[in-house]
Amino acid sequence: MAQAKKITPRAQDFSEWYNDVIMQAELADYSPVRGCMVIRPHGYRIWELMQRALDDMFKATGHQNAYFPLFIPMSFLAKEAEHVEGFAKEVALVTHTRLKATGKAGAQAVMPDPASVLEEPLVIRPTSETIIYAMFAKWIQSYRDLPLLLNQWCNIVRWEFRTRLFLRTTEFLWQEGHTAHATEAEAEAEARRMLGVYRTFQEQWMAMPVITGLKTESEKFAGALRTYALEALMQDNKALQAGTSHNLGQNFAKAFTVQYQTAAGGLEYVWNTSWGVSTRMIGGLVMTHSDDNGLVCPPKLAPVQVAIVPIWKSEEERGQVLGVGGQVKDELSSAGVRVELDARDSLKPGAKYFEWEAKGVPLRLEIGPRDVAAGQAMAARRAGGGGKAPVKLDGLARTVVLALDEIQAALLKTARERREAHSVRDVSKQQFLEFMKGTGGFAYGGYCGSGACEAEIKQQTGATVRVLPDPEFRSPEAPQTCMWCGKPSVAEAVWAQAY
Amino acid sequence: MAQAKKITPRAQDFSEWYNDVIMQAELADYSPVRGCMVIRPHGYRIWELMQRALDDMFKATGHQNAYFPLFIPMSFLAKEAEHVEGFAKEVALVTHTRLKATGKAGAQAVMPDPASVLEEPLVIRPTSETIIYAMFAKWIQSYRDLPLLLNQWCNIVRWEFRTRLFLRTTEFLWQEGHTAHATEAEAEAEARRMLGVYRTFQEQWMAMPVITGLKTESEKFAGALRTYALEALMQDNKALQAGTSHNLGQNFAKAFTVQYQTAAGGLEYVWNTSWGVSTRMIGGLVMTHSDDNGLVCPPKLAPVQVAIVPIWKSEEERGQVLGVGGQVKDELSSAGVRVELDARDSLKPGAKYFEWEAKGVPLRLEIGPRDVAAGQAMAARRAGGGGKAPVKLDGLARTVVLALDEIQAALLKTARERREAHSVRDVSKQQFLEFMKGTGGFAYGGYCGSGACEAEIKQQTGATVRVLPDPEFRSPEAPQTCMWCGKPSVAEAVWAQAY
Repeated sequence: MAQAKKITPRAQDFSEWYNDVIMQAELADYSPVRGCMVIRPHGYRIWELMQRALDDMFKATGHQNAYFPLFIPMSFLAKEAEHVEGFAKEVALVTHTRLKATGKAGAQAVMPDPASVLEEPLVIRPTSETIIYAMFAKWIQSYRDLPLLLNQWCNIVRWEFRTRLFLRTTEFLWQEGHTAHATEAEAEAEARRMLGVYRTFQEQWMAMPVITGLKTESEKFAGALRTYALEALMQDNKALQAGTSHNLGQNFAKAFTVQYQTAAGGLEYVWNTSWGVSTRMIGGLVMTHSDDNGLVCPPKLAPVQVAIVPIWKSEEERGQVLGVGGQVKDELSSAGVRVELDARDSLKPGAKYFEWEAKGVPLRLEIGPRDVAAGQAMAARRAGGGGKAPVKLDGLARTVVLALDEIQAALLKTARERREAHSVRDVSKQQFLEFMKGTGGFAYGGYCGSGACEAEIKQQTGATVRVLPDPEFRSPEAPQTCMWCGKPSVAEAVWAQAY
Repeated sequence: MAQAKKITPRAQDFSEWYNDVIMQAELADYSPVRGCMVIRPHGYRIWELMQRALDDMFKATGHQNAYFPLFIPMSFLAKEAEHVEGFAKEVALVTHTRLKATGKAGAQAVMPDPASVLEEPLVIRPTSETIIYAMFAKWIQSYRDLPLLLNQWCNIVRWEFRTRLFLRTTEFLWQEGHTAHATEAEAEAEARRMLGVYRTFQEQWMAMPVITGLKTESEKFAGALRTYALEALMQDNKALQAGTSHNLGQNFAKAFTVQYQTAAGGLEYVWNTSWGVSTRMIGGLVMTHSDDNGLVCPPKLAPVQVAIVPIWKSEEERGQVLGVGGQVKDELSSAGVRVELDARDSLKPGAKYFEWEAKGVPLRLEIGPRDVAAGQAMAARRAGGGGKAPVKLDGLARTVVLALDEIQAALLKTARERREAHSVRDVSKQQFLEFMKGTGGFAYGGYCGSGACEAEIKQQTGATVRVLPDPEFRSPEAPQTCMWCGKPSVAEAVWAQAY
């Protein structure tokens, strides 16, 4: 398992570095199915911790989980015109339901049984608006049934051409919230509320600072009225869309006849929202914090928060350090810390350090015979301050919990400073062109709102409008003109090259 | 939401009763996709509680979660001969990856794009042995990598002809454990260990007594060496297979070349196990405990364990009982009890009782003005003893926790007594025929081990061998002859008609 394979340095090839970090930390692996990955235990544990934190927040805001079918009748997808257009080029279609033996030699050669063709092909959900709102139509009769606030954790399939571990895979895991409301204002408030929940999660748990705001027409979700998004800046200065929240208006309500009787006795269409984040966030976590030694994982989402590495030469020392190590493990474990005692005989301490570093463990405690004698351990921080210093075994749990909190806060601070160092405001066209040709990053500037400028900018620089930022991210002075065409600006925009 | 629809009595039509209980409790609903159901929040919460309990037990026994692709290349399924034969008639196949507009009028008419046909069709996992062991081949090199103990929570698709809510659906949710071991003995011990974990869960959490044992050749998993199963007896005296654990031997290891270097330097195939339980258990829970008033849910898995129903006539009383109700709710909630205060103005207390009963809430606390004055609440047990009695508000949390434990234990006891009352031992052929024509249930008898007897019995009575029971379930005296053909018995068997 512990391979001494070197990780490609970020400066040399960021993309190779990213893959190396994932493979070395055993977060995921390539599968024999094109574009699909396997999420290995260390990566899946991060996902479980993400799920737990988000699910608690969803429930605290009144949502309940449910589960809807994987399959969507092809005709359902087609009911909302923009929606089907948006997804037509990337849907997996089930057409047969049985295998039969072929005439070829070998009992095991099989083919789809032509006698089992489905009358209507089934789409594997690329998102579940259509199947969910078909059920909403059945469940919602009166204003008393509103708001209906559901969420689903599930797998999703989009037939992507170029795939990247976690960032873009044919199948991925996500959650999708789906709600129905009596009024447009309530739907808008819900879409904004969940954007806020995502921001809290991404900043406080992932230590990944994000900019929130509105997507332009060309970047919004197929079928939405308005799409809000969270955008983070990776270490290669490319943006990552880390989550979206949509005000769907009455588009799907009309396509699926989701109506309710008002208190006054009238009949109205409901207003829907949907919002989702996915395993893509794990890719964002990797690219926000990790370094040339491997994964750096914020403590709140680290599968292992503390690795205890005992150091011994003799059998007697071994018994001694493992004894103390075991006590430390129990003490930390009781304090709710996720801790491992690495008692393996087959590896030297140095090899263990290397391995736990690659796996992103925030804090390592080394315990040798001299430490035992001095009633201490050597504490090495993986990142978020770094460094190595002795800590007293007396009151260790409290020290460790505080250290993990400090590391968590330091990672967010560092990431925010890095992002700001790679953000430019009030750019002119010339500055913008140089910036995008150079390091890249977030460029703030005036925008006329036209699709023509957007298309030209993308074509010439590869940059797209990430968001029209929310007030708290806007520049102190609103730009007056479009940084590209010079016409009056309708909104400040944030451009970046993006994943 | 609160419909006064009557539930069909069990005695009148068990199958209708089952569907009515599920629909009234809002556990699930039919979807527009053939054979697929929607799991509604109340049903999904039961699944979440099941997942949490099982997942803790899996982790405590050294297993880690991972996630493998939904898609399996058709050729993979075909690598193990028995396996593909077992699943060929029920697999959904993905053949296309894009939609295109048809020539028909209407911009939204679409069809699978013939230009997007996959070179090799993909099977939607009916179980994941093949894709998982293909990865094991990559990860396992040495005896140091063993045992490898993984588990996956996911959705599964089997194209079933006759479907029933929870019991048999085209898509269902489950967990599948997959392990690799160095020796046959270790694999056998693992398969038995997880059977034990399932039994503990089904008896202690679901309050559903089970018989464990070995499946016959005709009933074992396609590709397994040996299949162990858990069988429960439903209220209509039909058996439900509630989970299985397979010793896969080296069948898949050979099909996928999963080999390891031994400590001595040799090369050996690993030994695999797989084991799974699914959302089918929710159907088992319903049919074990529920009654003509709706769902009965064991407290440990009840989404709502206690419903507080305040009773008032005047506004003054309303304030008073809601105040006390709120305090009770907070107190119970702090004690870890899942509790709801039903403060709705739109429903009378009686209608609320009716609704919480249909939803299977184990304990109802009624609080009226006189109860407030007396410092008490009226506690009504849904089942597991039943009855209604005053309880002091002072020290209520402790009283409630004890009551829930009592109810939990009583449900298991009642279910076990019911099962034993419908079990017959040492049956003769004549008794067996009468039993299966009559009430049915578990019939224990001698078995010669022949497939011919098995087939004849099934054909004449509809009963199958559920298991060759483990020692703790066997009759005190081993039967000497096959109850059907009279030849020497090789094992005691338990027959029943089954779901």
